[in-house]
Amino acid sequence: MSGQNQAYASRALVARSRKLLMKKYRDREGLFIAEGLRTVEELLRQMPGTGYLEALLVDPGVAAGIMSRFPEEAGRLFLLAPGELSSLASTTTPQGVVGVFRKPAGAWEPGYGGGKSLMVALDDVQDPGNAGTILRTAAWFGAEGVLCGKGTADMFNPKAVRSSAGSIYSTGILDCQDLAGQLRLMQENGYHVVSASLGGKDLRGVRSWPEKLVLVIGNEANGVSPDVEALSDSLLMIPRLSSDERVESLNAAVSAAVFLARITL
Amino acid sequence: MSGQNQAYASRALVARSRKLLMKKYRDREGLFIAEGLRTVEELLRQMPGTGYLEALLVDPGVAAGIMSRFPEEAGRLFLLAPGELSSLASTTTPQGVVGVFRKPAGAWEPGYGGGKSLMVALDDVQDPGNAGTILRTAAWFGAEGVLCGKGTADMFNPKAVRSSAGSIYSTGILDCQDLAGQLRLMQENGYHVVSASLGGKDLRGVRSWPEKLVLVIGNEANGVSPDVEALSDSLLMIPRLSSDERVESLNAAVSAAVFLARITL
Repeated sequence: MSGQNQAYASRALVARSRKLLMKKYRDREGLFIAEGLRTVEELLRQMPGTGYLEALLVDPGVAAGIMSRFPEEAGRLFLLAPGELSSLASTTTPQGVVGVFRKPAGAWEPGYGGGKSLMVALDDVQDPGNAGTILRTAAWFGAEGVLCGKGTADMFNPKAVRSSAGSIYSTGILDCQDLAGQLRLMQENGYHVVSASLGGKDLRGVRSWPEKLVLVIGNEANGVSPDVEALSDSLLMIPRLSSDERVESLNAAVSAAVFLARITL
Repeated sequence: MSGQNQAYASRALVARSRKLLMKKYRDREGLFIAEGLRTVEELLRQMPGTGYLEALLVDPGVAAGIMSRFPEEAGRLFLLAPGELSSLASTTTPQGVVGVFRKPAGAWEPGYGGGKSLMVALDDVQDPGNAGTILRTAAWFGAEGVLCGKGTADMFNPKAVRSSAGSIYSTGILDCQDLAGQLRLMQENGYHVVSASLGGKDLRGVRSWPEKLVLVIGNEANGVSPDVEALSDSLLMIPRLSSDERVESLNAAVSAAVFLARITL
């Protein structure tokens, strides 16, 4: 199979796709961009139905290879002119392909009912790689959803999309400008709010975890914000086992993973 | 304090520093580059002595601020001409400063003697962000050192340096082209080799961990290599708790963190 029979992407399609690098347009169009073969593959496998792929935009040099991997998407594959791909990618190595995908249908809301439930809340987690990695980890450990507070990276940012490895379609995502208000609502519905905090108690002291729990991960440099800390049912920390006091902290996604494993395994 | 009394970096200093973006020159010179204020601050706090900072190269606009934070380093602070900083940085946001630091003195070697000991081995972990994050996490949980097998990102790559958050100075780093040979040597010295593998046994089944243990983390896409898998004393996996089978894997640094927390806490 050769790429030469494929259509080139229209200027309008390229321009529309490029705008998706900005959150404003992602929100307006309900679309997002995925960079690189691996991320595109993961999203193709995890998307709820065929309608979620809008377009595969590829360098002519890799078109034949992409076509042979995804023959059923041939009608949505468009070639790019030289230089166009880099204008669509925020990373320097998009491996010849970006995908334009549709966001999950409808806004996800926490259910509140039922028994056991685990959620993760991000309080100003600014790095999109951290936000995406936490989404991926939350999905693995069976969390229902991730609440994204003010200042948190957009989960549909291309770097977050890459780090989330397709989990965008398998875990709920709720943007909440007023995270403290949302957490109070969760508390009224029986959830315990557990915040990761370097000033908290050693997590090894917890003998059993509440059935309904929201784990809050704070900002990379400053931790959980004061209003969220104040409403938390508990503040917990991961003990440092190094005797070297110069080792100061853990990465935010690593902290989230250690807590999620501790809570669920 | 104003930056206007500071010297500009010589062309030779800038050219020499720029070469440090390449591993070959980092190895030859025993130096590496740290990008951004936060990373520079972490390294300044964690370096074993003042001789480890070679130079702080800063945009004139931020020089006064940097000087007031690190007054004792004024003699090593040099201004950059417009455009020079971006040529020294692999990230787009070096926040006006890069530091040239000296690598830890002498090659680190595992000790082998004594009792309890934890090491981490990276088998073709290619992403420098993952490698650096694993070093940082290993340092936190008290691992003595990280063995970097063939294909693993250089820990002195600027992205790895940023992710390691200063841990380069607090944890041993050993480059080993023959990781399998090194692991066999560790086994002869009483270490158990535990490899993270999606095909391994559920880590919840482990009742107690060996006193001397090397945790092996494999390649992001392909896991641990066949020869390392073959020599491993055990293959363990982190169970997926999501009922959604589309969730396929964890990030390599997240896996490492979950294992290290499980082993040590």
